[in-house]
Amino acid sequence: MKLDRLVGDRFKEKPADCVIESHSLMLRGGYMKFVTSGIFSQYMPLRRICRKIEQIIREEMDAIDGQEVLFPVALPAGLWEESGRYESVGSELLRFTDRNNAPMVLGMTHEEAAVQLVREYGASYTRYPFMIYQIQTKFRDEARPRAGLIRVREFTMKDAYSFHTSQEDLEEYYKRCYDAYNRIFARAGIPEVVTVKSDSGMMGGSISHEYMLLTPVGEDTIALCDECGYRANMEAAECVTINENEDSEELKEVYTPEMKTIDDVCRFLKLPVERSCKAVVYQKNMTDEYVIVFIRGDLDVNETKLRNHVGEDIHPGTITQDSGIEAGFIGPVGISGKFTVVYDRSLKGACDLLCGANKKDTHFTGLNMERDCGSVEYTDVAKITEGGICPVCGKHTIKISRGIEVGNIFQLGTKYTKSMGMQYLDSEGNLNYPVMGCYGIGVGRLAASVCEAHHDDHGPIWPISIAPWQVHICCLRSDDSEIRSVSDSLYDELQSKGIEVIYDDRDVRAGVMFSDADLLGVPVRAVISPRSLSEGAVEISTRDKSVNMKAAKKDAVREIIALVERLKKETERSVC
Amino acid sequence: MKLDRLVGDRFKEKPADCVIESHSLMLRGGYMKFVTSGIFSQYMPLRRICRKIEQIIREEMDAIDGQEVLFPVALPAGLWEESGRYESVGSELLRFTDRNNAPMVLGMTHEEAAVQLVREYGASYTRYPFMIYQIQTKFRDEARPRAGLIRVREFTMKDAYSFHTSQEDLEEYYKRCYDAYNRIFARAGIPEVVTVKSDSGMMGGSISHEYMLLTPVGEDTIALCDECGYRANMEAAECVTINENEDSEELKEVYTPEMKTIDDVCRFLKLPVERSCKAVVYQKNMTDEYVIVFIRGDLDVNETKLRNHVGEDIHPGTITQDSGIEAGFIGPVGISGKFTVVYDRSLKGACDLLCGANKKDTHFTGLNMERDCGSVEYTDVAKITEGGICPVCGKHTIKISRGIEVGNIFQLGTKYTKSMGMQYLDSEGNLNYPVMGCYGIGVGRLAASVCEAHHDDHGPIWPISIAPWQVHICCLRSDDSEIRSVSDSLYDELQSKGIEVIYDDRDVRAGVMFSDADLLGVPVRAVISPRSLSEGAVEISTRDKSVNMKAAKKDAVREIIALVERLKKETERSVC
Repeated sequence: MKLDRLVGDRFKEKPADCVIESHSLMLRGGYMKFVTSGIFSQYMPLRRICRKIEQIIREEMDAIDGQEVLFPVALPAGLWEESGRYESVGSELLRFTDRNNAPMVLGMTHEEAAVQLVREYGASYTRYPFMIYQIQTKFRDEARPRAGLIRVREFTMKDAYSFHTSQEDLEEYYKRCYDAYNRIFARAGIPEVVTVKSDSGMMGGSISHEYMLLTPVGEDTIALCDECGYRANMEAAECVTINENEDSEELKEVYTPEMKTIDDVCRFLKLPVERSCKAVVYQKNMTDEYVIVFIRGDLDVNETKLRNHVGEDIHPGTITQDSGIEAGFIGPVGISGKFTVVYDRSLKGACDLLCGANKKDTHFTGLNMERDCGSVEYTDVAKITEGGICPVCGKHTIKISRGIEVGNIFQLGTKYTKSMGMQYLDSEGNLNYPVMGCYGIGVGRLAASVCEAHHDDHGPIWPISIAPWQVHICCLRSDDSEIRSVSDSLYDELQSKGIEVIYDDRDVRAGVMFSDADLLGVPVRAVISPRSLSEGAVEISTRDKSVNMKAAKKDAVREIIALVERLKKETERSVC
Repeated sequence: MKLDRLVGDRFKEKPADCVIESHSLMLRGGYMKFVTSGIFSQYMPLRRICRKIEQIIREEMDAIDGQEVLFPVALPAGLWEESGRYESVGSELLRFTDRNNAPMVLGMTHEEAAVQLVREYGASYTRYPFMIYQIQTKFRDEARPRAGLIRVREFTMKDAYSFHTSQEDLEEYYKRCYDAYNRIFARAGIPEVVTVKSDSGMMGGSISHEYMLLTPVGEDTIALCDECGYRANMEAAECVTINENEDSEELKEVYTPEMKTIDDVCRFLKLPVERSCKAVVYQKNMTDEYVIVFIRGDLDVNETKLRNHVGEDIHPGTITQDSGIEAGFIGPVGISGKFTVVYDRSLKGACDLLCGANKKDTHFTGLNMERDCGSVEYTDVAKITEGGICPVCGKHTIKISRGIEVGNIFQLGTKYTKSMGMQYLDSEGNLNYPVMGCYGIGVGRLAASVCEAHHDDHGPIWPISIAPWQVHICCLRSDDSEIRSVSDSLYDELQSKGIEVIYDDRDVRAGVMFSDADLLGVPVRAVISPRSLSEGAVEISTRDKSVNMKAAKKDAVREIIALVERLKKETERSVC
């Protein structure tokens, strides 16, 4: 490919509204163009990167017995009604009607379509296990698309669905897929991706993992323990607390006028906040019914945990005059009314706490949960904190990091097969529901993540496995016949040996040529200049600057191919 | 791939509602599954066929300097408003709103997206020509999806867009693409595809061609001349007529009570229908305004030609009492009113005709168009007929055939660049609008067309270039250890040599095994049976029955690979 024919503009200025580097570099390098919020068109270099990623994914899915299929982008709403998600999923599911007013959706995930495809095929236990996958466009109507390809509305995704006759068989397959995912990320050039236990969210099911590229610009937050290796996303990370204060006090009213936050009262009474029980008020989205969470004063509510516990969507509450709630003075003693009350596990066994008294300008001290509130159910809805207790090794070692989720795997159980009536006859002639797993990777987000992990101020540094081209030739004086002839034949020879080459023979300054090459991020660069040719040599370097050498003209092709092969091997070595 | 692991059911019974064989065979062979009207999911065999077709298309597009890009499936309505098609295209364009009530469409073709992607890039003449293409999902909300993959609502399409600084340059590139398309169809196994001149329809522009697979089950109709090679679709085929009757009569009223069709009157007056001028009434969709077409009595109106002439959508008219139209007695003499009148070219210079007199129960004889109607504009809106006059060689040689449109190419001109404000500076510093071409192939429809062209009663006969696998091994007695061991090692050895093999080692009757193999349509078959092994041989055959041989066990791998290579070469030889 001649660079002067490559469609797309490259430019120096960082575009506005780019909060992360991959977004900025992919716009500056002519990789993609903004079409509308969360929707981009791809130019050739990004298309090539994505196709290489797709091929890596395909090979690894095939290696674990996956069968590539294709589901529709536009699905009849009926399928989502069967699973119950037509109602339960929010407005990120794009609903529309066709010309005959038939309700439809744009597929944002394809569990329903997968079950529909194999519902009859999987009628006998002899057909199991099997896994089907597709690489296809998805649409998710995100409220806040951001960060270039990291959070978009339309994206290419590999989604896989496995079907099993037992939980054990699912777990065995889950492990194979878990490993395949690690190979995919390593082959794509980011072996540093870690797995974290995650919350299954709207997918249903129990065990699930996310694959995270740890980076300060990530939009996900993860709890890590360096001592024991524990890793979980915030929704899945158990918040462990210890209450050491002893029961010594009586429940006693305190007059606390105008002190509406627990922090105010603690300061007034000179108590540490962890000696308080605070109330946080939410409302259910559907009914506006109040949900009052009692939690230890030093902790915050993790809304996803709370949402999962409540079983429906919630939002921060607005306390009205007629709500029966005494805003600022809410406490667990004798609370009653038409609301859901949730007790965070941090309060379990806690004594001698400060709390609201459900009476204007009044708090209690000396709260003993068991004595004063009776036998209530405690649930973990608290946010784990930096320096908190690791739920596995029990040490105060929790660190909070940020990351980009580049993939996820879920054990779905029978949520979809049950709701959609997919059954098989087992060897004894009984009907059972198959157990499912599902496994996703966003192709564009993975490309952007690799760029986040591998770039410098001048552009991306693509791993050779997914780079748009393998070699970038710069002919520094195309008007000099010798330089042109050496460059042209290097281009022709490399291409004839199957090397993917981008060739810059434009009549532009060296600075322009190099900054364009930096933006394209091709791993191997060959420069033919008057200076090098005066020594009879071609300059060969790598985009990451680890190699910078000269090769005699006659050896250049051989040296470049050897370097390409070496880089390929290095990527392969990182694959476990 | 082991056949007993292949997801999807194969069955014998022809499904209801299948009007063409490819539809029936693709359902019976486990290639695809119906999801909703005009929407299918693909199982692995079809996915593999489509991916091979996509790769052939990609190689041929790259060979004519195409750059693969990717446009969004969901596009902002604003882009289509710029081009004017948001209004002008009917309900096959699926319109919807996103969560923020922003109007959007599902891309059914991507001229607008292509211009949006390169509008800035193409600002200077030095950047031209260039071609970008994508292989992506499209959605077209067809009123009547039919015939399996032939007319669907969601489909994978390769669509390409070229940009030029002159009509000459477009024409030169158009020719290259024309040839590339012929290579694509030949490589996919249907070199018999012919090109026909076509109507550009809603795409705009002037010259365009369709690639047709001639088959009685096709939904398109084509006019062909065997004498001179003229080929055009019905919309583009000029209808040539000769009027030989001489002017001898006066215009004369005839009383024709209760005779409301021109056929009735001709019979009554014993005149041949070509001696009459009939009226056909339409209405404009938008305004209900009447469009009255006068045409020679033996011809029919081609509604697409009429639509293109009128410039908007029309439908057969309903004549009301207050319309000012005398239904059954409409004629060109003295007609006036609030309607558009169209004179078909078949009436040009015609004399001595019968026609309505715009008066109840009355006709005229002796109509002389020029004398009685004055100077009117004649337009070709007539349907060409079997045995009609070839517009090129002038002989009565026109044949009417049916075909499936497997691809199309258009010279678009400046319709989109003008409406969307894409301009470039030429070498003299003047601003100009680039000239565009566009080029489409539906991947699934091509797969179905190959199946139409190559099948027998038992299943498809896939050309080796797009077959889901190259070799199908049938192990006829997997419980016999020798037969199993020969089969297993044949499977392993062929795979290790890079041959794509589907291996049937199920414990089923030979009849089941062969009928499944027929449905999968893999070109080369190897059968290992007690009978063949007793002679120390493996049976090797082709799906099309042209080869049926025995090879000694030890030679089987070599013979099969030689056969695969021979079939590949035969396909290549058909490529011009």
